[in-house]
Amino acid sequence: MPKVTVHRKAHFNAAHRLFRKEWSDEKNYAVFGKCSNPNYHGHNYNLTVSLTGEINKETGFVYDLGILRDLIKTEIEDAFDHKNLNIEVTEFKELNPTAENISIVIYDKLRQHLPIDLDLKITLYETARNFVSYSGE
Amino acid sequence: MPKVTVHRKAHFNAAHRLFRKEWSDEKNYAVFGKCSNPNYHGHNYNLTVSLTGEINKETGFVYDLGILRDLIKTEIEDAFDHKNLNIEVTEFKELNPTAENISIVIYDKLRQHLPIDLDLKITLYETARNFVSYSGE
Amino acid sequence: MPKVTVHRKAHFNAAHRLFRKEWSDEKNYAVFGKCSNPNYHGHNYNLTVSLTGEINKETGFVYDLGILRDLIKTEIEDAFDHKNLNIEVTEFKELNPTAENISIVIYDKLRQHLPIDLDLKITLYETARNFVSYSGE
Amino acid sequence: MPKVTVHRKAHFNAAHRLFRKEWSDEKNYAVFGKCSNPNYHGHNYNLTVSLTGEINKETGFVYDLGILRDLIKTEIEDAFDHKNLNIEVTEFKELNPTAENISIVIYDKLRQHLPIDLDLKITLYETARNFVSYSGE
Amino acid sequence: MPKVTVHRKAHFNAAHRLFRKEWSDEKNYAVFGKCSNPNYHGHNYNLTVSLTGEINKETGFVYDLGILRDLIKTEIEDAFDHKNLNIEVTEFKELNPTAENISIVIYDKLRQHLPIDLDLKITLYETARNFVSYSGE
Amino acid sequence: MPKVTVHRKAHFNAAHRLFRKEWSDEKNYAVFGKCSNPNYHGHNYNLTVSLTGEINKETGFVYDLGILRDLIKTEIEDAFDHKNLNIEVTEFKELNPTAENISIVIYDKLRQHLPIDLDLKITLYETARNFVSYSGE
Repeated sequence: MPKVTVHRKAHFNAAHRLFRKEWSDEKNYAVFGKCSNPNYHGHNYNLTVSLTGEINKETGFVYDLGILRDLIKTEIEDAFDHKNLNIEVTEFKELNPTAENISIVIYDKLRQHLPIDLDLKITLYETARNFVSYSGE
Repeated sequence: MPKVTVHRKAHFNAAHRLFRKEWSDEKNYAVFGKCSNPNYHGHNYNLTVSLTGEINKETGFVYDLGILRDLIKTEIEDAFDHKNLNIEVTEFKELNPTAENISIVIYDKLRQHLPIDLDLKITLYETARNFVSYSGE
Repeated sequence: MPKVTVHRKAHFNAAHRLFRKEWSDEKNYAVFGKCSNPNYHGHNYNLTVSLTGEINKETGFVYDLGILRDLIKTEIEDAFDHKNLNIEVTEFKELNPTAENISIVIYDKLRQHLPIDLDLKITLYETARNFVSYSGE
Repeated sequence: MPKVTVHRKAHFNAAHRLFRKEWSDEKNYAVFGKCSNPNYHGHNYNLTVSLTGEINKETGFVYDLGILRDLIKTEIEDAFDHKNLNIEVTEFKELNPTAENISIVIYDKLRQHLPIDLDLKITLYETARNFVSYSGE
Repeated sequence: MPKVTVHRKAHFNAAHRLFRKEWSDEKNYAVFGKCSNPNYHGHNYNLTVSLTGEINKETGFVYDLGILRDLIKTEIEDAFDHKNLNIEVTEFKELNPTAENISIVIYDKLRQHLPIDLDLKITLYETARNFVSYSGE
Repeated sequence: MPKVTVHRKAHFNAAHRLFRKEWSDEKNYAVFGKCSNPNYHGHNYNLTVSLTGEINKETGFVYDLGILRDLIKTEIEDAFDHKNLNIEVTEFKELNPTAENISIVIYDKLRQHLPIDLDLKITLYETARNFVSYSGE
């Protein structure tokens, strides 16, 4: 069967700051600039989840996008939306919540709930001009 | 010569329903949900056609996007726009018009009119949040 | 208190056709073109609902956009999404579902559930290039 | 001379929470839901500033959009971008930073730097689906 | 009959420069900056044409958007697209092609072809961040 | 370390024409159509620069997008924005400024300033419907 990629968009709004706690405020500011503001700032994160695999001959689907929508809601939106990533999201307690690291956390959270024969790719917009993508490599 | 990908966007508005005629209404609803509504629903489909190949040294083009625009119009827009995909488009008489299957039909219709040394990829948005891509693999 | 307008976007996907049943097919085609296709076509309708009024001093809200979101869902999305407007939506049994008429129907359905001191405006995109707006005048 | 409206878009990323300090956590949650998260959340705010007035016959401008861009940067972006609105922006020390109130603060900050014969309007997107507009009435 | 506004989007790509020929190069640069580059620069102009009027009871249309699309093509796109506005468009021979002035020229060109009982408004994007609107006042 | 792609968007507005000087006006028009207008036309070019590489364990960055933003400004925006590509940009003195060729020039200009272990990809929108991508192959 032909291989097709299906994509589903979602979003969440969150606060974060970039910093390493073992660094001084000065070093954090030197490396992360205003993104290291100790009082936090925030973003509307726009997420695209992409799955590549063979079309199911019966349904004509690679994967039911309604199921994917619900999975993204349960695993990502409910966990991240209207949250402070540094304080309230376990994965970022010791991990700097850069867009790169957030995309890997999202990948790892979704990967375990998805069929092994589907390739997964995450695209995450932090702003309209800055975004990242990760496919588990 | 360097290889570049050129992309052209287009769109069409169509009605469809998802269903398998050998299934009962109940099974169709269980699998396809409200997308199996027997009275149809519809979408503004947004299409991107991508061609990858070497730049022509004389023109600086990989492929003339005006010619690609006209090809998409003749082969896809004239065939699909303001149509009921299930009833009026031959390819979907026996094929469930999921976004995945529509992208394959578009690929196959365009492939035969394009130079063999150009790689072709189809991206099809069914809604602002759901889309698929297919490159003939 | 200052007057502010708050806006909430929503969308629904539906099939429709433009026609007057008292006209012949030829006349319908002459007036409505391919939009009168008897087998229907469809759109992703994008809706913006705008409410103008004074800010509530306590909450800082003109109107709770979460309540507006739920109202749009109950009154509009549940009624129109994945439906055939001509066949399944009562208001269009005798009314041609042009974007203009759909915007008036949406206005009338929402108006009765909203405080009388708030001005209401409807903006409805039928395609990315065609849209209408209506404010009850 | 004819009257034209000129518009300039800008954006800033900020953290905030909605709450009234004289209310209990329970009441804040009842009214503002997850927007009252004590650890803050955040948004990419998209701003449009609109000025209406007569065209200057010599320049063909209503107002130099480069000057408006710089004014927005100095007055709004430098003050709000990558900030925690509740903690770091004076105007919201005692004012709930709803989109409505933010739009009024932006209006008031810009109004005093703009010619009196130009009408000013603020449009502020808090998310892709929620936005407000204010013109000083 | 209720009054509704119908909108149609279009676009054209053109070169221009901002300058007054009676001014020195220095003064032009002081006022218009890099927009006065004597070798021209260019834009993808995005245009929205809006018509407000009563719905026609028979058709459910305020104005046939297909006719409006064709009018915009004949009067605006054919005249402006892939042109140098200063050199090739008569209206700008003696008029500085600022976005403000272009919107007025578009208004005047369309106004004479449209029914007198319809209000006309022009919105013109010069860039994604700079745009103007004009309604003949 | 995992490999992630980081993307940064930018834009510039420029005039250009497509033509080969060794061809007659007739041949240029036959091949390039209205894009060969001797008086030039122009575009708002939207650029995405993508870098793929391993995440730096300390910073959580693949590459600092603030540095990338500044590099794009110095190398591309300052060189191309509000310019006539054919007349004022050295690289196009003998090279037809098609979107394909512009993307290669941008790639070559940026490539030499970026770490060798990062893969680079350029995506360039000439209009909302026409765009190209190039990754140095």
